[in-house]
Amino acid sequence: MLKITHPTLLVDKRKCLANINRMAGKARKNKVIFRPHFKTHQSADVGEWFRQSGVKAITVSSVTMARFFANHGWDDITIAFPVNILEIDEINDLASRIHLNLLVESHEVTSLLAKRLLVKAGFFIKIDTGYHRTGLDPENIPEINAVINEARQSNFLEFRGFLTHTGQTYYSKGINEIRHHHESAGKQLLNLKDIYITRFPGMILSTGDTPSCSLFEPVQGIDEIRPGNFVFYDLMQYCIGSCRLTEISVAAVCPVVALHEQRREAVLYGGAVHLSKEYCKVEGRIVYGLVVKYTGDSWDCNFPLGYLTSISQEHGIMKMNTGTRLHPGDLVAVMPVHSCLTADLMKEDWIIF
Amino acid sequence: MLKITHPTLLVDKRKCLANINRMAGKARKNKVIFRPHFKTHQSADVGEWFRQSGVKAITVSSVTMARFFANHGWDDITIAFPVNILEIDEINDLASRIHLNLLVESHEVTSLLAKRLLVKAGFFIKIDTGYHRTGLDPENIPEINAVINEARQSNFLEFRGFLTHTGQTYYSKGINEIRHHHESAGKQLLNLKDIYITRFPGMILSTGDTPSCSLFEPVQGIDEIRPGNFVFYDLMQYCIGSCRLTEISVAAVCPVVALHEQRREAVLYGGAVHLSKEYCKVEGRIVYGLVVKYTGDSWDCNFPLGYLTSISQEHGIMKMNTGTRLHPGDLVAVMPVHSCLTADLMKEDWIIF
Repeated sequence: MLKITHPTLLVDKRKCLANINRMAGKARKNKVIFRPHFKTHQSADVGEWFRQSGVKAITVSSVTMARFFANHGWDDITIAFPVNILEIDEINDLASRIHLNLLVESHEVTSLLAKRLLVKAGFFIKIDTGYHRTGLDPENIPEINAVINEARQSNFLEFRGFLTHTGQTYYSKGINEIRHHHESAGKQLLNLKDIYITRFPGMILSTGDTPSCSLFEPVQGIDEIRPGNFVFYDLMQYCIGSCRLTEISVAAVCPVVALHEQRREAVLYGGAVHLSKEYCKVEGRIVYGLVVKYTGDSWDCNFPLGYLTSISQEHGIMKMNTGTRLHPGDLVAVMPVHSCLTADLMKEDWIIF
Repeated sequence: MLKITHPTLLVDKRKCLANINRMAGKARKNKVIFRPHFKTHQSADVGEWFRQSGVKAITVSSVTMARFFANHGWDDITIAFPVNILEIDEINDLASRIHLNLLVESHEVTSLLAKRLLVKAGFFIKIDTGYHRTGLDPENIPEINAVINEARQSNFLEFRGFLTHTGQTYYSKGINEIRHHHESAGKQLLNLKDIYITRFPGMILSTGDTPSCSLFEPVQGIDEIRPGNFVFYDLMQYCIGSCRLTEISVAAVCPVVALHEQRREAVLYGGAVHLSKEYCKVEGRIVYGLVVKYTGDSWDCNFPLGYLTSISQEHGIMKMNTGTRLHPGDLVAVMPVHSCLTADLMKEDWIIF
């Protein structure tokens, strides 16, 4: 029995390992590089579990995270976020210590980088395959060429290939739409490979959203996958169809502090500073977390108690299912909507078991 | 000129002091106790600014925060969050060191508290004046009496009065609706004072949401106000009408990392892990922050550049106003939607000026 008195993130190592091994196995079977995204957990311990499953190369989304993992012995890191040229000193420092890959999406930034990079680093060109957050249109060959040409002004910048994040899968309605985005993204990258492979025989294509990587095999010809969320999964991924509820490997254990039986609500100590304000829709309702039974040392997702329907800084308001009986002083487990944000917020209050 | 390379929260001390002094002045003028909520800033430095304006008693929303401020010399603290009985050891420790006030809203928890509290502490009864998050119905006199009776089983629990948070003002449409909630909450508490003042001559009534406290004088007969957000204010408060844009005293300075001119978007290094996913509606659009000019050592809110219209873990997507010209490597200032959450998320990256 754990002694928990305040919101605490339980991390189920066995479930994490199963998620890691399943994805690593899929990568091996398909002969693609597995470069998991570490932004989800940002944890040296969880990183070690990946290492034990054979992972040698990782993805992060900031220079700060790259430095953190470099300090924990990771020496092959892609920062899958457009180069922030203001951090060039930190980038030079990192590139002098590890194999660093950067991400660019314009000839302007590539030009700045070419002038200011002082040690060897690889770079990917970010391609927008339909998410429309960042990246170059895959048909914008003139700009892609301009990026490559600017990079050639430097002796230190080495072209690694094309990278995309098919983030629109998160907003898809059903598996067929995800499949469409997944295959379309692959096809768009493969077109670029056709154009550039002769000139850059070692170039690679990198994809990697958790829904696509969980539900499908990598598109034939893709060289690398970079999923991150799958190590924990969460309610959003469950709603998308990427995972089973039993595969979610984290839950925030929260004390019940008040009950309002008339409106069938419980008040939890557990709010936006623990779970984030990310929500998803379950049966048309906005929810901030699925509340299930806490068992004393884990949680039972087959024993749902209700949903968080409202959240403020420290409060979570839970609508109780019919039959749910709670008392102040009880602990319940909240399966988070977006585990990346919850894990980040609760990083000082993890219990790994 | 500040050297900023990654998302950094600028805190304008002069504006904070003006906000503090304005609210402290209003409290003095109305002869009410000013017990500001420190959950917004959670900062020992900002706490000192309050102390210098004469504040001696504060509000927090967790035992952890109470301990933090007790360790920084604050000896009169109300934890305005329903007692979490699982933290009774920490509560006993705190109550032995400072004047501690707790919050209860049921006879069950009061009974547990009466049994387990080992040193003197005050308690308020939380009253629900219409927000329907926590608290007892002010007409539920039997339950209020039950709470008071349970408390009498302890030699340590001292009744302080009734406390409410009129959080529905945050969702009000216009000043008249806020006024209605403000006055209604006051009236409901005053009814309770009529009933209990003879028995508890020293009892006090405590209110304190930032919209009501900013826009109106305290209702006659209210004894204490506990606003918190006003020290920083934010875009939500501006939209509600609680403050001017020039009174917002924090902004997150973020690097521009990419531009997408065709869709008039800039990509900022600054996402949900910095700003939170809190949004508000401006002219019908969902926005995650107002982007204004960064001046090298502050920001100019009279120089708007656009809005954040989408946000993910590290990315902020900004729709640029007509005429806005940005380049990768520029810095811009984001006025946050909810400064309490942004300040909490960015607590390791503050610059006070």
